[in-house]
Amino acid sequence: MRSGPALDAETILTATEEVLRRHGPAKATVLDVARALGVSHASVYRHFPSKAALREAVARRWLGRAREPLAAVAADTRQAAPERLRTWLTTLFTAKRHLMSDDPELFATYRVLVAEHSSAFADHVDGLVEQLRVIIADGVGSGDFTSPDPAATARTVFAATMAYHHPAHAPEWQAPEAEAALEAVCALLINGLRPR
Amino acid sequence: MRSGPALDAETILTATEEVLRRHGPAKATVLDVARALGVSHASVYRHFPSKAALREAVARRWLGRAREPLAAVAADTRQAAPERLRTWLTTLFTAKRHLMSDDPELFATYRVLVAEHSSAFADHVDGLVEQLRVIIADGVGSGDFTSPDPAATARTVFAATMAYHHPAHAPEWQAPEAEAALEAVCALLINGLRPR
Repeated sequence: MRSGPALDAETILTATEEVLRRHGPAKATVLDVARALGVSHASVYRHFPSKAALREAVARRWLGRAREPLAAVAADTRQAAPERLRTWLTTLFTAKRHLMSDDPELFATYRVLVAEHSSAFADHVDGLVEQLRVIIADGVGSGDFTSPDPAATARTVFAATMAYHHPAHAPEWQAPEAEAALEAVCALLINGLRPR
Repeated sequence: MRSGPALDAETILTATEEVLRRHGPAKATVLDVARALGVSHASVYRHFPSKAALREAVARRWLGRAREPLAAVAADTRQAAPERLRTWLTTLFTAKRHLMSDDPELFATYRVLVAEHSSAFADHVDGLVEQLRVIIADGVGSGDFTSPDPAATARTVFAATMAYHHPAHAPEWQAPEAEAALEAVCALLINGLRPR
């Protein structure tokens, strides 16, 4: 059995990620996680009441980490809103594309976990749309954009760039023209947001 | 054996559609088609050299039929280009949504056939993008739109509306807010196309 610092939730989540990577999402069990940590599975259940709760927490942590660099872009008021919007959408696209190409198996694992926990995914999308809302509202404030409802406009921009962040389209992201295609969509959307 | 008018390609395709509907894409055979027509399977092979060729022809005919009402919208110069673009995108969305909700099994069958024949699908997308190009070029001509390259802009508009025509997003099309969401994307894109 494990000695040393007390078992905390973060340690369990990190071990679960490693177990998921090693065994795949279909085979990974709570017992595997407990074994990897050198603890009883009761110790794991003390932090996460079920296997589903543990997997959801892994999915949420992963999605949260994915939002971090985007939050930094959204908050970077040194960039004017139109340029910031373009940077945000490009950052989202390139991050997803790298994730997909660098480690397709891990990407597939997280897709399984996220699909199992649709509320985690819905919260993630809400978080992303909120970041877009901030950029659009800043643009309205500076006179670069016009929008009667930045939150609704944020959803519209998210929907109009679906081909560049929804994993169903991942097979097309490696195409050499994908980045220029996103760039063209961004230019059209930014133009559509400008006041006239 | 069959009597009456000589067997033509269209008759075979119609029978194949019926067989696919009855047996599903995994089980349907050329022999089933021949049986349904009361002919030998050699008679079918005289028109289509292989099962793959027959299935591709069914996919192409289906996709061609799907483009017909859209071609009528694209060519309807009584509508100004911005309104025509909106009508075209909405027609594409509602046609796909109906197809999906009215007969999900048939929709799934055609998805299998189209996935088998990626060149048929690529040609279909090219055909749709060409219709969009006509609308955009008309808009440039009338001064409603600006675009240095209507063909490229047509691809951009098609990409920006992916969530409303790509079957990966079909599960979301039944949501009550889907139509308003597409409407918002259309408005943003049309705004983005306007000269300033």
